[in-house]
Amino acid sequence: MAQQHLDPTDPTAGVATGDALAAYLRAQATEFLRALRLHRETGGSQASGAEESVDAARLLRRSARRISGSLHTFRPLLDSDWSEAMRPELAWLSGTLGLEHAYEARLERLLLALHRLSGAATLPAQAVDAALAAVPGGTSGPAPASERGNLTVGAAKAGALLERQLTLARTRAHSTALQALGSSRFHAVADKVAVLASEVPLTLTAPTTDLRPLAAAAEERLTDAIAALPLVTAGHPYNAEALVHGLSPDPSPHPQDGPWHQVRLLLRLHRYACEVLHGGGPVVDVRLLAAGQALNRHRDASEAAAAAAQAARTPRIAPATAYALGVLHADQRHEVEAARFAFQQAWQKQIISAP
Amino acid sequence: MAQQHLDPTDPTAGVATGDALAAYLRAQATEFLRALRLHRETGGSQASGAEESVDAARLLRRSARRISGSLHTFRPLLDSDWSEAMRPELAWLSGTLGLEHAYEARLERLLLALHRLSGAATLPAQAVDAALAAVPGGTSGPAPASERGNLTVGAAKAGALLERQLTLARTRAHSTALQALGSSRFHAVADKVAVLASEVPLTLTAPTTDLRPLAAAAEERLTDAIAALPLVTAGHPYNAEALVHGLSPDPSPHPQDGPWHQVRLLLRLHRYACEVLHGGGPVVDVRLLAAGQALNRHRDASEAAAAAAQAARTPRIAPATAYALGVLHADQRHEVEAARFAFQQAWQKQIISAP
Repeated sequence: MAQQHLDPTDPTAGVATGDALAAYLRAQATEFLRALRLHRETGGSQASGAEESVDAARLLRRSARRISGSLHTFRPLLDSDWSEAMRPELAWLSGTLGLEHAYEARLERLLLALHRLSGAATLPAQAVDAALAAVPGGTSGPAPASERGNLTVGAAKAGALLERQLTLARTRAHSTALQALGSSRFHAVADKVAVLASEVPLTLTAPTTDLRPLAAAAEERLTDAIAALPLVTAGHPYNAEALVHGLSPDPSPHPQDGPWHQVRLLLRLHRYACEVLHGGGPVVDVRLLAAGQALNRHRDASEAAAAAAQAARTPRIAPATAYALGVLHADQRHEVEAARFAFQQAWQKQIISAP
Repeated sequence: MAQQHLDPTDPTAGVATGDALAAYLRAQATEFLRALRLHRETGGSQASGAEESVDAARLLRRSARRISGSLHTFRPLLDSDWSEAMRPELAWLSGTLGLEHAYEARLERLLLALHRLSGAATLPAQAVDAALAAVPGGTSGPAPASERGNLTVGAAKAGALLERQLTLARTRAHSTALQALGSSRFHAVADKVAVLASEVPLTLTAPTTDLRPLAAAAEERLTDAIAALPLVTAGHPYNAEALVHGLSPDPSPHPQDGPWHQVRLLLRLHRYACEVLHGGGPVVDVRLLAAGQALNRHRDASEAAAAAAQAARTPRIAPATAYALGVLHADQRHEVEAARFAFQQAWQKQIISAP
């Protein structure tokens, strides 16, 4: 996909230049428009989005992230006014479209964990079905024993409470996303992306500028941020760090997660920059993927733990419900710790195998 | 200490025989009597035992365990009627004397964990002092903020509840131990141990019987039990196994701990058998010590987790208290998992370094 100069006297011959960036942005813009069409066709306007609609939203966000990331990493090669106006709009769109799925995934993660913690022998898929069946929205009382399966009253009530709160949040996120997709703000973004699909506002010198220094700078920001992580601690299993503030009175008790979330974003920017350099296709680097998956898991567990803690602050809940939410919170914080360990393992491998 | 036959025509020359066992038992019986005297002198009858009294009880149990363990491992070399009458009495004594300290250590472990989970910056010793200061027995309401330090209301109330329950249990255990030490049952044991200090009821053939096959059988029971442990799982950090039944409605939710507790006992028997073979002194095997410490930690965390779960079943506690106890329970179950990992690491080293 990259259009490279093949003139042997050209010092940038064979290396990716601004032309490769333009090709990448055009391709991602085309993907964006295709996903948008798919989203409209598959009933993005229905109250409960169908599976195709969810996929379409996922594809929309996927290309929005890639466009936004490339605009950031290769900023000097692009018209700066255009670029600076575009990025916050793409971030808004991606964030708005992502929330609904995030709440859904968070609920699924927490219900699965509740079943696992209850020693339920069911398989994951069955467990979620059973959990969803056991906790009909709006019913706070315990379901009949036959429906509850292996869940204790506390776990079942905790599941029902989380179901209510996260379903409400998801429904709101769905409405917000629908409103966003119908807004003039969204249409302005879509128009800009449509232009981008044919015309990338490169600077005059960009077509002959080597992309590698900018990509290297993105990688350096990543490695610097990773170097600042407490990786030695993370590499010692069961260091009990992630739960250190599990009962802290501090309303924002987990500032320790911040640097890891930041590395997750920088890792993504690095991956997108690699995609640009390698002609647009996804870069298959098993270790980079493993590190990224660990950081996704870190983020998911961190937010699930916060949701459990938040649910426990609901007034007038039963002690058994609060107890189950406490166990659940600690379980997810240990998932956070496990994800850090997994990241450390993946990243160390990468360093060792580097030439 | 071992009395070995030095006759070069004796096939058991240079190896430990029943004589070594007799010497070991006499030495341990002497230790037992010394500890008993110390216990009486240092006011074992006071309502709250002084530090010396605690040490004396520890020494009493130490020799009782060693006598009992040797009676078990080297059973065929000893008068069986005497041996079978002796062991349950020693187990009763050791168990009765150990409970008070166990409750005290459990409370300390749980209060330390509560402080750690609250992100308190204090050192362990200070933390316990602060926690004890913050949770005066019998006061269930939250202490003033200045006293609570970094503890949330939930954590402080959970600490107060545990303090009340475990202090009550400790006080009862203390009374029971005092009653036991004044009972005719105890005097009968002490008399038997006094006889043992000078006269070990060996069988006729014991003085020339090699101890090694019986010691090897004890070691084999240990290695068999370890082989049946899920060590592959335990060797994978963050396997989330220990909390699998964290919310189970089963009243005895952690049968998975049983085999590990059993290995802990078998490891102890193996260590005592080594002591007998090596002339009575403690056997310094760093890996064996590390494995034993991991199993002690496993047992302590398992029982602390159960105490937190038990406290959460107290009627009419506040949801914040129940939540803190849930976090605490999960934290201690992860300590259980961490201890299994530590045991696996220690034990694997042992196997690899064996010739």
